[in-house]
Amino acid sequence: MTKGKQLFSTVNSDNTLELSLDTVEVRTPGPDDVLVRIEAAPINPSDMFPLFGTADMRKAKHAGDGDNLKLVAPISEATMPVMHSRIDQPLPVGNECAGTVIATGDSDAAKALEGRLVSILPGAAYAEYACVPAITCLTHNDGITAREAASAFVNPLTTLGFLETMRLENHTALVHTAAASNLGQMLVRLCTNESVELVNIVRSDAQVDILRALGAKHVCDSSAADFSGQLTDAIDATGATLGFDAIGGGQMANHILICMERALSKNASGLNTYGSSEHKQVYLYGGLDLNPTTLNRGYGMSWGIGGWLMPNMLARVGIKQAAEMRQKVADEIKTTFASSYTAEISLTEMLDPAQIAEYLPKKTGTKYIVTPQKG
Amino acid sequence: MTKGKQLFSTVNSDNTLELSLDTVEVRTPGPDDVLVRIEAAPINPSDMFPLFGTADMRKAKHAGDGDNLKLVAPISEATMPVMHSRIDQPLPVGNECAGTVIATGDSDAAKALEGRLVSILPGAAYAEYACVPAITCLTHNDGITAREAASAFVNPLTTLGFLETMRLENHTALVHTAAASNLGQMLVRLCTNESVELVNIVRSDAQVDILRALGAKHVCDSSAADFSGQLTDAIDATGATLGFDAIGGGQMANHILICMERALSKNASGLNTYGSSEHKQVYLYGGLDLNPTTLNRGYGMSWGIGGWLMPNMLARVGIKQAAEMRQKVADEIKTTFASSYTAEISLTEMLDPAQIAEYLPKKTGTKYIVTPQKG
Repeated sequence: MTKGKQLFSTVNSDNTLELSLDTVEVRTPGPDDVLVRIEAAPINPSDMFPLFGTADMRKAKHAGDGDNLKLVAPISEATMPVMHSRIDQPLPVGNECAGTVIATGDSDAAKALEGRLVSILPGAAYAEYACVPAITCLTHNDGITAREAASAFVNPLTTLGFLETMRLENHTALVHTAAASNLGQMLVRLCTNESVELVNIVRSDAQVDILRALGAKHVCDSSAADFSGQLTDAIDATGATLGFDAIGGGQMANHILICMERALSKNASGLNTYGSSEHKQVYLYGGLDLNPTTLNRGYGMSWGIGGWLMPNMLARVGIKQAAEMRQKVADEIKTTFASSYTAEISLTEMLDPAQIAEYLPKKTGTKYIVTPQKG
Repeated sequence: MTKGKQLFSTVNSDNTLELSLDTVEVRTPGPDDVLVRIEAAPINPSDMFPLFGTADMRKAKHAGDGDNLKLVAPISEATMPVMHSRIDQPLPVGNECAGTVIATGDSDAAKALEGRLVSILPGAAYAEYACVPAITCLTHNDGITAREAASAFVNPLTTLGFLETMRLENHTALVHTAAASNLGQMLVRLCTNESVELVNIVRSDAQVDILRALGAKHVCDSSAADFSGQLTDAIDATGATLGFDAIGGGQMANHILICMERALSKNASGLNTYGSSEHKQVYLYGGLDLNPTTLNRGYGMSWGIGGWLMPNMLARVGIKQAAEMRQKVADEIKTTFASSYTAEISLTEMLDPAQIAEYLPKKTGTKYIVTPQKG
């Protein structure tokens, strides 16, 4: 029986969040399972809510020590209802990771992975080990490191999912916000490879430069005085009628729809009561801004906005195409789908308030990676 | 050559709106056309923006007289861009009407309509005559009056379109706002006939009584202190994951999504980071509230909101099914799809500021009908 450290997050009914690093017994692989020694796990924006909920981590304090290390932080009474489904349950955290298969079940599919580097999406990645079905593994080609393989699911499949959504819903070009992010840069490379026109929205001059250096053709700076004009022109040039917005709150989605409508209705005459007939869609795939989303509806009646979630997209395309997407990620993990990291931290350091102050803010261009085998 | 009076609306570049009642020559029917003597045309909420744009009709003044009657009203500079596509163009107004075919082209299809009462959607219904393709006519059964037939397109096909959208998008029950309206009452009758569960949202006790009298099972009063609880319970009881909202602005769509998520997540445990996996959708098909739509996104990631337009729906279902829908309307025009009217007014009276003050406000339960043959 293998034992290993694993991070858990608990929302206690006394309005506290508790992070604990516990030593747990790892499940023995069944016939179709593999046991993975986790070597690298990224901290993605999508890991933050499972990890910290709505707790005020600036007020976090250590409790326990050694083999029983805990970090406790207060949660405001008002936000407790948001987390009612998880109260008093120690929950695993960490969406994705990479590591080496160190034991397998008896099936051929499982045995074939013995000793291989795989990426997995266990939802319990902040741990030393994970036991998962062999069929869920993304198997890497030779010569790839765990650090290179760590982010093979969330960002790569999200960018591939954007393009697949575009095709399924009859659009031909994309608008993307927070475009200087790790994901945004990946999307620039992917769209270049696939000859898909992409309108990148960033927040500063410096970010414009980052994307231009990557070869991005359309980059609009939301801090510029003529942002609306830039965006309308870029949408007009590309014909983009689909946007993916990581910001979620505020006016960004509304702004994209307004500029799409301006581009599409520029030559309209007559009543045009309901605006252009082309369907204009913005999907919110993140929530960097927690403020409400505001829509002034100044874009006729052929528009939509909604949540977008990568696993829902994979379910929509089906098993075969999802497998093709994963193979593409494996084949291009050092190029198109490469991620870069600000720093490595250990499982123990994940519970250090000083480290949390670094990795919790969702700052564009910073990304941390956890190395569970280093303590 | 037939001549007749027709109402036109012009947004002038000098920031005025001009309504004029002009005498125009009516097009002679081509082989596949019919000439309709318009006898009754409803004033629908969807006619308001084409008629008045953003003009301040409280400041409207008459100009011209007799055969050249005009009404002129100011438009604020700030709202002129909304109407840029229609500046300095006299545009026909009036979505739908009913009348008698008084001349036809030579084709069999056209000749078959000679003398028949038809409903049409000419977009120029505030007129004495219209020449339209025979194929666009909804032909009524014997014994129907023009007044009974006047509203055969906009509201009936909207309610049928709601149900068809529900089926196409895999929902099984509906939420509807402004449910005491003419359209709302029609939807109650239709859903009862089709055994579709419907959650009706109204704004007052009196409106609750109106819908209860029609046999509506689920009626929620948005002015009640426990509205959220009422709505969540009704959604839970019906399984409604699709809403149609006539209000558009403010918090109503958000509120519906919140209550859907509460109903769907009531037994959730664990992280539930992205909320329930069932897709929750609200379509905005009107804009009674012109304020921005505000979404707090407190319903996970499987949700959508968007514009909904009946003609887009008809295009989606195709010609054959659209024809079946129209036949159903003809067969049930005195029952399921019956409309009632507050008062009849003439074309001349449409230009009377005192009459406009009555028919312009989109008041639930009032509906005016124009009788072009009466002056």
